[in-house]
Amino acid sequence: MRIRIKPQHVEQFNQHVRNAYLCSTQPSVAPKTLVVPQPKPVIVDKGESSRYWVDPTNHMRLPRSLAAALYQTQNTQSKRSIGNMEKPSFQPKKVLILSKLTRYEFEKKVNKGCDDDQLASILRKRGSDYNRLLSKHKIHHSYLNTLQRELENAGIESRLVRRFGYTQEAVDWADAVFSAGGDGTFLMASSKVRTKHKPVIGINTDPQGSEGYMCLMRKLPEENLSGALKKLFSGNFEWLYRQRIRITVTGDDGISDAIELHDQQLNRDPATTRWTDNPRSPARENDVEECMSLSPPVKKRMISESDAKEIAMIPIEKETVELPVLALNEVFVGESLSSRVSYYEIGLNDEQMLKQKSSGITICTGTGSTSWHFNINKLTEQCVQDLMKIVAEHCNLPQIPHTDKNAVSEICTKFNQQLIFDPDRKQLAFSVRDPIFNATFPPTDPRGFADKIRIKSRGYDAHLVIDGGISYRFNDGSEAVMEVRDEDTLRTVVFR
Amino acid sequence: MRIRIKPQHVEQFNQHVRNAYLCSTQPSVAPKTLVVPQPKPVIVDKGESSRYWVDPTNHMRLPRSLAAALYQTQNTQSKRSIGNMEKPSFQPKKVLILSKLTRYEFEKKVNKGCDDDQLASILRKRGSDYNRLLSKHKIHHSYLNTLQRELENAGIESRLVRRFGYTQEAVDWADAVFSAGGDGTFLMASSKVRTKHKPVIGINTDPQGSEGYMCLMRKLPEENLSGALKKLFSGNFEWLYRQRIRITVTGDDGISDAIELHDQQLNRDPATTRWTDNPRSPARENDVEECMSLSPPVKKRMISESDAKEIAMIPIEKETVELPVLALNEVFVGESLSSRVSYYEIGLNDEQMLKQKSSGITICTGTGSTSWHFNINKLTEQCVQDLMKIVAEHCNLPQIPHTDKNAVSEICTKFNQQLIFDPDRKQLAFSVRDPIFNATFPPTDPRGFADKIRIKSRGYDAHLVIDGGISYRFNDGSEAVMEVRDEDTLRTVVFR
Repeated sequence: MRIRIKPQHVEQFNQHVRNAYLCSTQPSVAPKTLVVPQPKPVIVDKGESSRYWVDPTNHMRLPRSLAAALYQTQNTQSKRSIGNMEKPSFQPKKVLILSKLTRYEFEKKVNKGCDDDQLASILRKRGSDYNRLLSKHKIHHSYLNTLQRELENAGIESRLVRRFGYTQEAVDWADAVFSAGGDGTFLMASSKVRTKHKPVIGINTDPQGSEGYMCLMRKLPEENLSGALKKLFSGNFEWLYRQRIRITVTGDDGISDAIELHDQQLNRDPATTRWTDNPRSPARENDVEECMSLSPPVKKRMISESDAKEIAMIPIEKETVELPVLALNEVFVGESLSSRVSYYEIGLNDEQMLKQKSSGITICTGTGSTSWHFNINKLTEQCVQDLMKIVAEHCNLPQIPHTDKNAVSEICTKFNQQLIFDPDRKQLAFSVRDPIFNATFPPTDPRGFADKIRIKSRGYDAHLVIDGGISYRFNDGSEAVMEVRDEDTLRTVVFR
Repeated sequence: MRIRIKPQHVEQFNQHVRNAYLCSTQPSVAPKTLVVPQPKPVIVDKGESSRYWVDPTNHMRLPRSLAAALYQTQNTQSKRSIGNMEKPSFQPKKVLILSKLTRYEFEKKVNKGCDDDQLASILRKRGSDYNRLLSKHKIHHSYLNTLQRELENAGIESRLVRRFGYTQEAVDWADAVFSAGGDGTFLMASSKVRTKHKPVIGINTDPQGSEGYMCLMRKLPEENLSGALKKLFSGNFEWLYRQRIRITVTGDDGISDAIELHDQQLNRDPATTRWTDNPRSPARENDVEECMSLSPPVKKRMISESDAKEIAMIPIEKETVELPVLALNEVFVGESLSSRVSYYEIGLNDEQMLKQKSSGITICTGTGSTSWHFNINKLTEQCVQDLMKIVAEHCNLPQIPHTDKNAVSEICTKFNQQLIFDPDRKQLAFSVRDPIFNATFPPTDPRGFADKIRIKSRGYDAHLVIDGGISYRFNDGSEAVMEVRDEDTLRTVVFR
């Protein structure tokens, strides 16, 4: 939603937004109508401030053309059609809470035997800030305590687990799942929910560090959490449906076990990862004992070297397996090594397969279209300005306003916004990174939609990565089919 | 150079180009003026054919907007200023030839004991074509024989080595170096030449498979090789200077040994890699015995785990090392795993360091600007068309020709062409892949030039990759400074 404000009122309005956001109502008193404005782009008629958006949580400025993805909230969230109207009601008996491990907790574990002074020193050597870690740890637990308390007050039984306790059994026990963490924790939580009848709700316990794309109200202040939960329990919300990608793989030698890329990626501050706080790196087995794959193992069939020659003469039967994890954001297919070129063939719907050479390909849902897909395809104002200048000169149209920063910003914003689509849309968007076209690899549109996408690997050491966290080997000889199915829909909530 | 041809003459002209290119003059008779037209874009006034360029070697069509990089020959090759005029003369006494290993040779080696029928069968199972491999093997050796014969006829002593015999000693022995292979072999050849007085000349022995950006006449037909070499020996050429990037790294625990990513990448057909035929994958030590790192080891200092706590309290002295390899195309800095986000800080010239989060960054020379850098930054016609449409609607300028495919193609071409710059330009171009901007990581221009670039790693498992082939560990705590120095210039030849 855009609001037109006169220039002289901008500062006042921003102040209002900040105040409302950092709402100082008492947590125990639920306001009758909870008004917690989302951080929204503020558009002004003229001036530099119109091109920027200010984040109330930390007052950082961000060009509007890039905020397009971050704050494209209401427009893209679909309402189900009238024929599918379901009066919202959230009254579970049993709720499972998946909590992330805070970085503070992780560092204490990894540096066993160090007292807090020593830990502070070790962290400082790495350029990390102990006090900040501790502060974030406390904030996380403050949210968590409030959540648990409100569930108890509502007479709902709850269990708290961290990632290694987040088993299918625990999920099956629950009627609903809450994640307490950031977007990464939400992804992890939803990865084990395979039915569209079990809601998953994300609570962003790190609004400073995580964008909270998939969390309730994105960056809900802690003092407003109680009120929001009461709203939820009283049915004052709407269901939000997010489509997911089902992947079926056919391979020569079976499908490898998943490689778990999750980790708290604790070498960095803030503790965030690619576009969410989806932790990502091979779990350090030595350091953290309870390292367990979240994905059930997939049956493998080994071929011994001595049989290779004989087998070379016999057609090998390929095995087809549906991967046990659905993708909520995207599937990435490409070489594991970032500097290696990826080779594969791609077929959209039931069309012919085409050869491609690139830095890999992402296939995303509407949910994922604000994430990696967005970052690959967005244009910067620099690029848009350059192009507008070329168009102006080539077409002899000096009235094209390439020197007008506001116009460039608005045009860039419109372009970037069109990259984003509805989480409930039952289609896949593909995006080829750094496509290499030459006489051998004829060009194709590097971006588009399809109902079904088939990829045949011609890779050396390629993998198929789900939501940036779970990786399957995907080499020459393997094929994957990706599609969206209604029964894989993820149910979550939104406040309108 | 562009030629305006009337539509009715296009086919005739194309035929002429093809004939001249596949010149049928006898190899032993050197034409007085050797006219071997480079594959050039043919621009026509109207019609679909104006947007496409036809490759005479295989008749594949390629949109002009993408051919822009491939065929931007004469315009960007600099002539040194009058004050630096040096009459060309090429009269070495001793020449070293670095030949690639053909894929056929590699497969024979790896599948020891298999006769050709069995080899053919194994390859067929992988979707590879034995006959094609054999044919390319023969073509390669045909070029190689001609080269050796011409050198002998000219009274020049020559030695032939493959990669494992390509030592510094061998290079120092020679007055000049020839590479026989594709662009990857040229990169490998130039990697050991550290003086600007020793010319390196690339002969593209796989014109069908390799683009030959850095090779003599790019895709010189084999029957024209003799003539071209005679031209070279008679001084009828110009020097072409290519700038390179010197990298100096400072790290906490010393610099790791280089990881050799070279390999013949022989699982694919055609045997080409990212943007050149630069082979790339961890050398398979078990399969190919003479596996030797091309890069001299760099001194390492290990810190034991037991000292870690103690050391945490003591400032560690950092070690500064100049890497033993110069980059001719580009340096890539980023996480090793393609699906992991990269964190680092970057400072241009002597400006303040800025934090960034992205899919990594490339820093390239003019030579490299046609390569990975180009593929990252190029726009497709789809993208340009979308943007032109938005501009037309936003600015109410219906005369912007976004539905005119020719106009879109020309504008796209102009944009893409401006990405490419002179190999002799003494500046670095940086390009950030999929930059992630949000409130924590303020936006910066993702593309630009600098004389010097400093990068501080905040990586988990990051590396610094030179020309896609040699990789150095580059983790949190390490810093690299990249710059261009005159003494690192690579001298090669070009025919005008």
